[in-house]
This record gives sequence, structure tokens and C-alpha cells, in this order.
Amino acid sequence: MRAGAPDVPSLEDWLAKHADGGRLGVDPRLLSWARARELRKCLEGADGRLVTLADNLVDAVWETAPALPREPAQVLSAEHAGATPADKLARIRERLAERSCDWLLLTTLDAIAWTLNLRGRDVAFNPLLISYAIVGRERASLFVDTRKIADLAREHLRGAQVDVAPYEDFAAAVGELSGRVWLDPKTASLWVAEQIDTERVKIVEDANPVDLFKARKNATEQAGMRASHVRDGAALVRFLHWLEGAWGEGLDEHGAAERLEGFRREGEHFQGLSFPTISGFAGNGAIVHYGVSRESAARIDDSAPYLVDSGAQYLDGTTDVTRTIHLGVPTDEQRRHYTLVLKGHVALRHARFPKGTSGAQLDVLARHALWQEGLDYGHGTGHGVGHYLNVHEGPQSISPRGARVPLEPGMIVSNEPGFYLAERYGIRIENLVLVVEVASAEQTGGAPFYGFEDLTFVPYCRKLIDLSLLDAVEIAAIDSYHQQVFERLAEGLQQPARDWLVRETAPLS
Amino acid sequence: MRAGAPDVPSLEDWLAKHADGGRLGVDPRLLSWARARELRKCLEGADGRLVTLADNLVDAVWETAPALPREPAQVLSAEHAGATPADKLARIRERLAERSCDWLLLTTLDAIAWTLNLRGRDVAFNPLLISYAIVGRERASLFVDTRKIADLAREHLRGAQVDVAPYEDFAAAVGELSGRVWLDPKTASLWVAEQIDTERVKIVEDANPVDLFKARKNATEQAGMRASHVRDGAALVRFLHWLEGAWGEGLDEHGAAERLEGFRREGEHFQGLSFPTISGFAGNGAIVHYGVSRESAARIDDSAPYLVDSGAQYLDGTTDVTRTIHLGVPTDEQRRHYTLVLKGHVALRHARFPKGTSGAQLDVLARHALWQEGLDYGHGTGHGVGHYLNVHEGPQSISPRGARVPLEPGMIVSNEPGFYLAERYGIRIENLVLVVEVASAEQTGGAPFYGFEDLTFVPYCRKLIDLSLLDAVEIAAIDSYHQQVFERLAEGLQQPARDWLVRETAPLS
Repeated sequence: MRAGAPDVPSLEDWLAKHADGGRLGVDPRLLSWARARELRKCLEGADGRLVTLADNLVDAVWETAPALPREPAQVLSAEHAGATPADKLARIRERLAERSCDWLLLTTLDAIAWTLNLRGRDVAFNPLLISYAIVGRERASLFVDTRKIADLAREHLRGAQVDVAPYEDFAAAVGELSGRVWLDPKTASLWVAEQIDTERVKIVEDANPVDLFKARKNATEQAGMRASHVRDGAALVRFLHWLEGAWGEGLDEHGAAERLEGFRREGEHFQGLSFPTISGFAGNGAIVHYGVSRESAARIDDSAPYLVDSGAQYLDGTTDVTRTIHLGVPTDEQRRHYTLVLKGHVALRHARFPKGTSGAQLDVLARHALWQEGLDYGHGTGHGVGHYLNVHEGPQSISPRGARVPLEPGMIVSNEPGFYLAERYGIRIENLVLVVEVASAEQTGGAPFYGFEDLTFVPYCRKLIDLSLLDAVEIAAIDSYHQQVFERLAEGLQQPARDWLVRETAPLS
Repeated sequence: MRAGAPDVPSLEDWLAKHADGGRLGVDPRLLSWARARELRKCLEGADGRLVTLADNLVDAVWETAPALPREPAQVLSAEHAGATPADKLARIRERLAERSCDWLLLTTLDAIAWTLNLRGRDVAFNPLLISYAIVGRERASLFVDTRKIADLAREHLRGAQVDVAPYEDFAAAVGELSGRVWLDPKTASLWVAEQIDTERVKIVEDANPVDLFKARKNATEQAGMRASHVRDGAALVRFLHWLEGAWGEGLDEHGAAERLEGFRREGEHFQGLSFPTISGFAGNGAIVHYGVSRESAARIDDSAPYLVDSGAQYLDGTTDVTRTIHLGVPTDEQRRHYTLVLKGHVALRHARFPKGTSGAQLDVLARHALWQEGLDYGHGTGHGVGHYLNVHEGPQSISPRGARVPLEPGMIVSNEPGFYLAERYGIRIENLVLVVEVASAEQTGGAPFYGFEDLTFVPYCRKLIDLSLLDAVEIAAIDSYHQQVFERLAEGLQQPARDWLVRETAPLS
């Protein structure tokens, strides 16, 4: 059964109906503590039981499982991170004191990477280091394959008074804790929770405070995001210009994605892609998470829209951008659909909202123009983005079903409405935006108001814009964006890509 | 401490911090089962305990407490209700069968009134009968002060095979249940839950299914809501016309509210007001839940806006409407504020949205125009409304913090954005709207799309509209609404109120 699909019951509902006194075995490392308790409750309602297994039954028969990665950890300098691990640990300790807690368990890899200014190569596209960490009021420990911690990283951690211990020692270290231990039940695994000696420990359940610290980028992180997006935008402009000339000689979706990666590789601080490039021509563009392979790639030509959703990791930031173009003459319907998506994208970009507003509240602004025509898209409008970290991060998002976490200055979200016609074409327009204050409490006489600043600078596709569907305010907004695209990117481009940029960023009317 | 105010901790947070091993006594009749469990959890985390008291300590010292009401129950005929109690019990029993439940406990007065087509006079403004009910697969019982059930009502209930039992017998009847009992933990009191013999009963916790039945009005209820709103609109038009002539001779907020009630009393099927009229001149209009008394009422004149939020109960429907007017010459600022509120009101009214969309998602449409100017209002945009029942009902709402209950055809919500300048004036524009299907799944090729139909027909205040802030689509929408107001109300009005209506509903431009 496809989880989440219409008419497919949730795991909980299914268990409540079918458990019938049975025992459900789980690998406690692969289940959050919160979810495990939900499952347990459902099972118990049906006289069933949740049983923790010591060994993973899939691992036991998976003979060709790859070995664990062994790449060394990378130290992210304070020049890029804007704060030292010692600064960040001090912030965590303030929170520990406020909540009268003695320890915080860090069980998510991006929270550990951010706190300790460490990056790794253990997970494709996500610069993470497989590890756990325990932060106490006086000491902190990182549990990791110690072979990955070279001299520089060891020195770096020593500077923040962080002990390095073998990964395997984490369970025992948790078992020895006493006092009040802060644990996020939504992200900590059942296995972590089971290591705690509840005779000696009072568990304080709450969201990991690092998630909000990490989500609100500091001034250095913001500056790095801006700078890396200029490099990234230039690569995409070079690609789009190149594509216009190259497709006629024979090009497929995979070749296009490779060429785009090539342009990105030339940029300073490039570390790799931030996710597998979605390079979808015609009907493939309508598959929201289309994965292209060399073998299956379709030929790109001028008969339909082409959608490219891509991003990179740089030492100073993470990018994620989608553009939809047409290499020939779009139909009126394609222009109408593209323009309705663009209207939503522009409406969200220019929204102003009082402090306390969540992305869930704003989502409809990106859908409204489509909805008025009876159209919609089946995904959220925006996700949080890390700073040289995961391209998807929380807790904020712009989604009807997202958590009601207020958007705060320094947070970064994507703004990516779309529209998909199965087997014909897909349209998506995506920029990353930074939440900024646009009016202070003094100015409004009430709450401070926030808005968005574009981080992504790549022209929209003028050929796909139907001006008759835009009002004067929308046209001015697009012209102003295009002017900013030109100002930021022109300097870094050479002819003839620069001429292409001039043409693509000229005023619409 | 004012619950819900900024910087005021929740009861749970306060208890977690201060309980310190203490015992918290509660009257279990005044606390939902769900809330009681939350409090219990907090207290136990602080080594405290929740203690159920047999007697209410306030009652024990409240020597002047009024006696319980003794008004007889009123039978609502199927002509107005559109379905018999037998029909409704059959729908409940289908749900009981689907969930393999034997019993549903009805512990909310509006659910009982709706199910049994009974109304009462036990609660001011809300036509409710103090009672409990138990619905089983074969039988159903109403627990009520039996003196309130006269012959007609007794006959009516007998026709639906509903037993009538003394109110006091409810606890014992619950205690005798066995099998699977459906209980809504958010609305059932701790006391009700404690009456259940958990040795013999498996409690199935879920939202009361009657709430959704009740929220989705049937065709007869919809027709009654439309008809009662025409009567109600005519009363308000007569009032607004009268007010223009009457204020000069000396009139205060209380006198105005009384005169408005007088106009409503003349309407067919009038049963009383649906809530105390909010009649607020100038700064009093900025107090969202302003209560006016004969003693404190301010004089109404032509120097500031006047806000009147009022509604009535009719046998065939419930109304709730707010209009803001100005008896003199409004300032540019007042017109700007009024028009920004009106823009939000119109945007929400004309929203189209796919099946599955909740009011929480739509709320921002009513705020967007204000937000773009750094303005906002501190209340939700819309609440559900009953059919000759409570003027506030769930589960749907249009509010950023509301439950994510999808809006479904037949649901009624208010559309009431506002803007308030403390001590100067308040602006609110409120219509009730009915959710209707505007495009089928076949037409959209995806989900069916829904929209709103206005139920309320009363002119907006043209004097307060700044046309320069409206676009052509908005002006056409207002003109079209005004034309409908004229078409519906003109016939029922006499001169000179009819001339006033002609003037007030003429095209804006």
C-alpha cells in the first residue's frame, strides 16, 4: 500500500484493525520515539504488542550491503559559519538552564553538524557526519567513527571543549546520564529513548532547540547564501544560454543535467550537488520527483516545456532553484499555465505578514491564481533550506499541512508553486527566499511585519509569460526582479551569455 | 492571569512549574476528559496529582445562584429541520456499525438538539435543552428534566423510539453500558468518562460524528437559512435607514440595539437574538466583544464610524451580520481602512478551493490587503453557524489557529475581517456564507472545487468605500452583490426604506 495515497489507511489505523493480539517487531533505530508510542497505543487497543528487536532482520539477509563510509570530517571555519562551536554550545546551555535541564541529546545529523561546525560525506548530497552528541551544562561529547576526525577537526573540537568518543560508546554514555535530559521525541529513535535509565533520569520532551537556532541564519550565513546564489545563478544562466544552442545537435535530459553540473563545478566553494538534478522534458516534467538516468533519459527538443530543478552545496551556502523553459514556441495553454504559476510565485514573494505568521497560513497565496481557474498542484509550496547543509530542513515550511511554526527573520524557505499535466508537461518556478523584517513594531504600531528577500537570481522564462494575465503591479514586480538578476549576475558572465542575460532581463512591457 | 494573552503561560506550563507535589482539585463536570488528562500528565511530571471533587466548591458558597431553567422543550418540525430524528439516528447508527461501536454518548447540547429536532430555552441566545443522550444500535435515550417534555415532544420522541429518562439517571445508565462506547474526549467531561465501567467497556475515542452531520446543512436547512436571512436583511435595512433620520434627535448605542431588535421581532419565525448585539460607536467599535448596557451606552452621532454586529434566531435559521457605517463625512483614513477590510471580505467570498481545503488555509485571503499595509485584526475571520442553533459551532472555522477541518458543501461560516484603532473606531464587515460546489471533479479533471454563496444580504457602506483602492474585478463583485441585495430585499420593504435600498445598492461607478 502506498502510504499517504488517498484511501490508503494510515499504519496506525491498519494496525488497530488487523493487529488482533499480534506482536509487531520493529528495529528501534528506525522508528522515532513518538511514532513508536503511537504504534504501541494502537496495538494495545487491539490487544497487540510492540516488540523491539535487537537485530535488524533485513540487515541479516542483506549480503551485499555497502560498508559504512569512512570519509574524513570537514571543519567549517567560523568565517563561513559566523559563529564558533563554543558560541553555539553556549546558546544551547542557556536553553538547558532555562528549562532546568542537565543534558541535551543531539540525535539528528544536521543539528550536530551545525552545532559543531563540522560537515561530512557520509550521506549523498547532504554534508553530514554519522554521529550522536550529548551536550551537558559543562561538557559535550561527539560520538563518531574516530578515524574520521583528523588532527584539524580534533583541534577544532578541543577548542570548544568537545570530547570525541567512539560511535559505539553512545549507548553506554546515555545509560550513565542522570538528572533532567532534554530529548526530542519526534526525532530521537525509540532505541535512544530505551538507553536512558529512567530511574535516574527525568526526560524532558520538547523540540530540539538547535532546530530553530539553525533555521534562523546569522548574518554570515545570510551573506554566504547571497554570495553562493550569485555563483549558482551565473551557472544556471550559462546553462540556459548554452541549452538554446546545444539542443539542436541532440541532447537528452541526462546530458543536460551533466552539463549544468559542469557549469556549477566551476564556481568557487563548490562541494557537490544538493540533490539529484530533476531534468524533465515534456511529460517527464510532470513527474514531481522525476529521477533521470543515462539509460532512460528522453531527448530534449523544442516541442514542449522543459523543467530543471537543481541545486548545489557550496562552502558558504546551499542552493535549490527550478526554472521551466520552452525552446520553441509555447502554446497559449502552456503560457496560461506558466503565468498562473508565476502569479502565485510573485504573490507569495511580495507577501507581508505580522510576526507569528506560519508558512501554513501563507501557502494559499501561491495557489490562489491557480485555484480561481480550478487548478492546483499536489505538493507543498516551500521547505526550509540549510546553510551548506540539508536542502530540506525544518521546522518551518510553506505548506497547508506543515507545522504551525512562525516564520522568523533569517529563515530561508523555497517559493515553488507548480502545475502538472500528466504525460504532457510540468511547470514549476522556484526561488529561495530569506525572511526579513519589512516594518518594525514602532512603524506598524502593532506587531513587526516580515516579508521575503529573493536569494535566487535567474530570469523567468519570458516566452512563457502571458502578459494579459498579469496586472501592472505584477509586471512591475517581475521587471524589478529581472533588473536585480542583471545587476547581480552580469559582472560574472562573459559574452555571449551576457547578451542572453540582457535580453532575458529586459522589461516585459 | 489572562489566559491566552502574550507572555501568559498556559495552565499546563504553569502547573508543570509550580505544582511541586501538590494536589489540584477540579470539578470533573467542568473539564473535558482530554484536558483533564493533559493536566494530569503535567501534574504527574511535577509529582503532583489531579483530584476529582464530588462537590463544586463555588456552588457551595454561591447562595444567590439562580435556579435551573424550567421552560418546556420545543419540537422543530421536519418541515424546518429537513429530516426526522429517526433519519438522523439512522445516520448515527451507520457510523456506529462502521466503527463496530455499540453506543455513542452525546454530551454536547447542540448535538442533542440537532439529532432530536428539539430546541430549548435553557441557555440565553442558544436554543438548547440541558440534557445528555445515549444512542445505541437499537435504542436511544434522552436524559432531561422530564417536566420540560410536554405531550407533543414526548410523542415526537416516541416516534423516533427515543426513551425519555430523568436527567439524574444518566450516570447510572452510562455505568451500566457494556461493549464499545464512542466518546469524544474533547467535549465529554471528565465526569462522564468516570461514569464508564472500564471493566466492561472499551472506549473508542474520536470526534462526535454528529458535529459533521450538523455542520453540513441539508437542503431544507440551507433553504431556511436563505429565507431567514432575507427577513433579517430587511430588518437591518429598515434599521440603517431609520438610523440616518433618528440619530439627530438623540440616540445611544443601547437604544439603537433595542430598535434593531424591534425591527427583527416583526419578522416571521423570530425566536430571539442569537447573541447580545454589539452596538459600538467610535472607540467602542474598536472593542471586539463590546457589551453595551443602558447605563454605559455612548451617544451615536455623525462624528465617527458606528459598528453593529447582531443576529437573530428564527425557526428556519440563525443570522449573524456586521455592518460598519458612518452617519457623517468619513475621513480618508477611515475610508482607506474600511476599503482594505472590504477587499479582504470580497477576496475570501470569491475564493475557489479544491476539496480538502480547510478554513485555516483560506484565512490569509481576508487579511492580505491589510497585511500589505502593515495592518491586521486580532481575531479569526470566520466561525461555523448552526441552523436555528448556536451562532458559533464547529468543527470548521476560518482562522489561522483553527482545526484543519476541510470545508464541505453545506457548511456555513462567517466572513468577517475587521480593523480596529483603539479608542478611535472599529471596522468589521461580516456576511454568513454557504460552502457550495463550483466545479465538479469532471469539470476540473482533478478534485471538485468549492466556493461560497452569500447568505447575508445587506448593503455595504458606500460612503466608506475608497474606489481608488479597488480594481475592476472587486468593483464588479460589489456591484453584483448589491444587485442581489436589491433583488432579494426590495419586495419586502416599504417606502422610504425601499428608496434608501435603491440608493445604497446602485452601481459604485
